[in-house]
Amino acid sequence: MIIGCGRSAPSLIKYLGLEMNPCQVLIADKDSGLAREYTKGFENIRVIDFDIENEEMRDRLIKQADLVLSMVPARFHPLVLDSCIKHRVDMITPSYESDEMLERKDEIRRAGILVLNEMGLDPGIDHMSAMKVIDEIRAAGSELSAFESFTGGLMAPGFDQNPWQYKFTWNPRNVILAGQGGAVRFLHNGRHKYIPYTKVFRRTEKIEIDGYGMFEGYANRDSLNYLKKYDLSRLSTIYRGTLRRPGFCRAWDLFVQLGVTDDSYVVEGSESMTYRQFFNSFLPYNPTDSVELKLMQYLKIDQDSGLMEKLQYLDIFSNKKIGLKNATPAKILEHILKEKWSMDPEDRDMVVMWHKFYYKNQEGTYFQKTSSLVAIGEDARHTAMAKTVGLPMGIAAKLVLNDEITSKGLQLPVTQEIYLQVLSKLRKIGIAFVEQTEKKDDDRENQPVF
Amino acid sequence: MIIGCGRSAPSLIKYLGLEMNPCQVLIADKDSGLAREYTKGFENIRVIDFDIENEEMRDRLIKQADLVLSMVPARFHPLVLDSCIKHRVDMITPSYESDEMLERKDEIRRAGILVLNEMGLDPGIDHMSAMKVIDEIRAAGSELSAFESFTGGLMAPGFDQNPWQYKFTWNPRNVILAGQGGAVRFLHNGRHKYIPYTKVFRRTEKIEIDGYGMFEGYANRDSLNYLKKYDLSRLSTIYRGTLRRPGFCRAWDLFVQLGVTDDSYVVEGSESMTYRQFFNSFLPYNPTDSVELKLMQYLKIDQDSGLMEKLQYLDIFSNKKIGLKNATPAKILEHILKEKWSMDPEDRDMVVMWHKFYYKNQEGTYFQKTSSLVAIGEDARHTAMAKTVGLPMGIAAKLVLNDEITSKGLQLPVTQEIYLQVLSKLRKIGIAFVEQTEKKDDDRENQPVF
Repeated sequence: MIIGCGRSAPSLIKYLGLEMNPCQVLIADKDSGLAREYTKGFENIRVIDFDIENEEMRDRLIKQADLVLSMVPARFHPLVLDSCIKHRVDMITPSYESDEMLERKDEIRRAGILVLNEMGLDPGIDHMSAMKVIDEIRAAGSELSAFESFTGGLMAPGFDQNPWQYKFTWNPRNVILAGQGGAVRFLHNGRHKYIPYTKVFRRTEKIEIDGYGMFEGYANRDSLNYLKKYDLSRLSTIYRGTLRRPGFCRAWDLFVQLGVTDDSYVVEGSESMTYRQFFNSFLPYNPTDSVELKLMQYLKIDQDSGLMEKLQYLDIFSNKKIGLKNATPAKILEHILKEKWSMDPEDRDMVVMWHKFYYKNQEGTYFQKTSSLVAIGEDARHTAMAKTVGLPMGIAAKLVLNDEITSKGLQLPVTQEIYLQVLSKLRKIGIAFVEQTEKKDDDRENQPVF
Repeated sequence: MIIGCGRSAPSLIKYLGLEMNPCQVLIADKDSGLAREYTKGFENIRVIDFDIENEEMRDRLIKQADLVLSMVPARFHPLVLDSCIKHRVDMITPSYESDEMLERKDEIRRAGILVLNEMGLDPGIDHMSAMKVIDEIRAAGSELSAFESFTGGLMAPGFDQNPWQYKFTWNPRNVILAGQGGAVRFLHNGRHKYIPYTKVFRRTEKIEIDGYGMFEGYANRDSLNYLKKYDLSRLSTIYRGTLRRPGFCRAWDLFVQLGVTDDSYVVEGSESMTYRQFFNSFLPYNPTDSVELKLMQYLKIDQDSGLMEKLQYLDIFSNKKIGLKNATPAKILEHILKEKWSMDPEDRDMVVMWHKFYYKNQEGTYFQKTSSLVAIGEDARHTAMAKTVGLPMGIAAKLVLNDEITSKGLQLPVTQEIYLQVLSKLRKIGIAFVEQTEKKDDDRENQPVF
């Protein structure tokens, strides 16, 4: 049983429809129209209209299931968990293991079921691909000292021809709010480092991936959590980030500096405002200077920096009406960006993941290993993003149903039983990491972790 | 009855001790030692140890009082209010009218008591001095279109000889957290303007006050609230700010950009860290460059800008130990600043308030009126800040007890009954505003409100 039919559904449905035949799949969604479209041609998949807050219905359907894949927004997982515990049904989600899940760890164990979270791309494939290398390093008796990891949802080469080389390939809101809600914290050579929101998009790291060129990464907020998740207590450098094409972050920082990513208050009169008026409301008043000039002066933008080109591409200086009632700056910015950054039907996206490991072997020689993944989408529906979220879910489902994953309790895909099998199956369908190892002088200290 | 004996107590006690004799004053404080020291020599003032959360004691003492001056931290006022309503005793506070107070407006009215909030300096004297001019402009049939208001707690000339020309004269924590908690919002020529935290200290306005030189003002968060408070619905410009000496804000912004004013998380290992290590944790890692060099490069500080001099004065690059367990960046910064910015016993502080009104008279001529106050303290105990908070409280108390203020219900000092009498008495003891009016071309649009 799959609950929720969102962006990652097409890949998941296709995988289960083909791989799980003759097994029966039930898709339950509050608006089943899309699910019915996706499942056309698959005899073994049924679709049903579903209200997740209807306990009787939830219990009745989950009771009949052998396994539940919960693809609903994360806040609804606890409802699904209730029914899964009650009827002793295993459950998999692509969402972060929440505090609510953790609090129920013992209860889950007592029910004797598997609750496997973080089984998508990020979180998901990131854990599995990182743990594979980390466990190999440990098994060889080597000592891991630094780990960096970056993931990005971008446009494929040839489909990134706008000045930002970017379009939304997943939830736009997460892109707008990235970096907010608390300082970034990470560890660099044993030192705790902190970056406030106002500097996150200015402290980027450049990364090159063979055949795909240059990227830049900005820091995620949560690097330190991974020390525990990956059992990396003795690590002296850990840094996780998000990838963009070079130049994106510097330009995005202009929005941060202006204040237009703020989601905490409503802009007065947002409905009848133009894009130009909206941006002007973050600039000093002046009856004669143009909004463009004021913005360049305020943000210290040089004419020839390429930044104004990026801003102008988004029509932020135009007289288009916003048309959103009582909207926050973040909501308005999302609206403006969606116009230019929505994928066309034929567009192809690209998922990029890149890990770097620094370690010393038993002879005292230093090595740097990188492990990278590039996945290209088929079109705006069958995106690389949807595939890399949906397929690990589908593969894990099959492994659980075939008793090839037998762990029970609250789990993450950081154990060999899970990641070895899932990565191997992903590789067979073309989602494969490339690893490279090189000998290093002990020059860690000069490596640029920002 | 005075509840709470804080920084503003000496002036309030002196005023009541001299002015209210033979009336009896009771001071109730959780630690009455300081109160006993302040009240030496005043026969009409008694001091008592007091636990504000002890309902029985609170009720018993408040029941006997004719009037309560609540000088406790704002979160405790509702407890005092409970007892005042129960026993029908009037109450005055120097704190902002909270939502909790507003919710009980009807209850207060039904009890037939006066609850007068915002009766200190800011809020307090700011309201009274502004409303006096605003009501005069209205009474003359003129039309007010712009109002700006700035207040600052600074050091008196001759006592401001550090590179920041600043010391703490009130609660340091409020200085550290200034500008946080949401975007600044104000109105300029009918346009709503928004400033994020990252720009608040870079969008300052320069102000000159005769005889006292130049100041700079940064925006407060709450300007728009005053449209309602002052019943200024047709105003097209309203802007409230805080005054510092020129150069302070640009340097303070360095702390904002670094992230050291953040109060939302704990710095790992803060207790054993040095000042230098603390600041380094906000800078990129580099094993060879000095913390000083990294900071200059990161924040784009020129050697000769005077900014490094300000930072070095605070010893932020020193190896002094912080010694605070599990402290937030804001807490650590407060600790560092207190070392240099605490007043010496003989130091004199200065309170500066400055209003600007722009209006058109019935003949269509434009005027600009400024109203300014400068108050100088006597020493580190009898500060201008303590006087300008404590004296309006004392004066209002006397007026209420003598039935010269007879209003009941939930009140602010924006009514003529209150402000005319209080301002007149303040003037007699040397706390006097200087007003200046000049004719203007209608050049509002070219005036710098940032």
